[in-house]
Amino acid sequence: MKGSLLYEGKAKKVYHVDNEPEQLVLSYKNDATAFNGKKKDQFEGKGRLNNLITSRIFEYLQQQNLSSHFIKALNDTEQLVAKTTIIPLEVVVRNVAAGSITRRLGIEEKLEFSPPLVELFYKKDELDDPILNDQHALHLTDVTENELKSIKDKALEVNGHLQTLFKQSGLQLVDFKLEFGRLADGTIVLADEISPDTCRLWDENTGEKMDKDVFREGLGDLISVYENILKRLEENTCAK
Amino acid sequence: MKGSLLYEGKAKKVYHVDNEPEQLVLSYKNDATAFNGKKKDQFEGKGRLNNLITSRIFEYLQQQNLSSHFIKALNDTEQLVAKTTIIPLEVVVRNVAAGSITRRLGIEEKLEFSPPLVELFYKKDELDDPILNDQHALHLTDVTENELKSIKDKALEVNGHLQTLFKQSGLQLVDFKLEFGRLADGTIVLADEISPDTCRLWDENTGEKMDKDVFREGLGDLISVYENILKRLEENTCAK
Repeated sequence: MKGSLLYEGKAKKVYHVDNEPEQLVLSYKNDATAFNGKKKDQFEGKGRLNNLITSRIFEYLQQQNLSSHFIKALNDTEQLVAKTTIIPLEVVVRNVAAGSITRRLGIEEKLEFSPPLVELFYKKDELDDPILNDQHALHLTDVTENELKSIKDKALEVNGHLQTLFKQSGLQLVDFKLEFGRLADGTIVLADEISPDTCRLWDENTGEKMDKDVFREGLGDLISVYENILKRLEENTCAK
Repeated sequence: MKGSLLYEGKAKKVYHVDNEPEQLVLSYKNDATAFNGKKKDQFEGKGRLNNLITSRIFEYLQQQNLSSHFIKALNDTEQLVAKTTIIPLEVVVRNVAAGSITRRLGIEEKLEFSPPLVELFYKKDELDDPILNDQHALHLTDVTENELKSIKDKALEVNGHLQTLFKQSGLQLVDFKLEFGRLADGTIVLADEISPDTCRLWDENTGEKMDKDVFREGLGDLISVYENILKRLEENTCAK
């Protein structure tokens, strides 16, 4: 059923599906990269964890009637998704200041953003993913003004759902990155992954970092942290 | 009449005015700085040229009913302005791609932006004036959403007037930076300067750079270029 390799990214391989031109298989890798690929490592079991966590989260979003490319998990490391053309924007939602924004704008870590802050970055490794304003995004991509507005609204809607989901698991959702893609009929849907690689999650009680910052900052064992996230989500979501 | 020094910036000194608490004197310096102060020099006569050019331009904008802090030129290097509290935003309007945006977003020099691009930067030397989106600007300054919209509209209105003015002088207005300030009554008006230090101007026929890029890129004699700009403006504007 899995066809030829279409594309290999930093965290996933993307395969065609035989006889299903509008579907793809995402295969999660064990690689971890940070600082635009400047820091790299491999963690046995990471692909499985991000696949299972992302699958749980996309299932939860679908239960909340939020459409995405996700169809189903196929096995431990692979999921079936609708084929989209990825829009080259990284849409970041920030509830609390952490990471790059603290250095970029001199904002103190842990400052709360109310309303949450939405940032757009141009997905372009060779330019180090520069931050964009709306006009840049309209200039550099094929999205219309209305589509851009709806992408940002959708990102805030996802934020609301994820905050609820993670709160049930004792986790504070600090910030996260989304990507959107265009289906064959032109519709824009949520795509890519949502995992501790793409979210900042802090334990609500201890404040402990439970996401890729463990790798970025060398804070401990990435795999046991990600296992812990999956376990908490499994306790609070029902698999289909 | 000129009172005590209030503030010294990279290009200007700002003085109080005796018995006129809502007025200031701007005194233009001969210093040239680029790359956030990393390149520095002094050019005899530069303060006079930027004062006279800025005065011509603000007079022209006032004739077009565009309000600003400008009251009048006092002498060769000084002008009288209404006192404002400067909003820490650099508002950049780009008609054509040049300078930092070409490197930042991988856009080819000379590409035309239609509509013109408006960019906001946080006026903060120690952070290297980072680029902002609208939400950042609302978070980091005291401007309201409506005020921010009106600042951007005003910047585009200035762009239209300056394009006309410079075209009459055989110059293409590539991009420029504006600053806005708040009067005692809270009204936001155009402030700071508009000169070849803050605009990119290309000769319409030869394409020659006739602005601070001459200094940034070491292309020739800054003073004779700025003299040329003043002369062209004098031929096309009537002093009050």
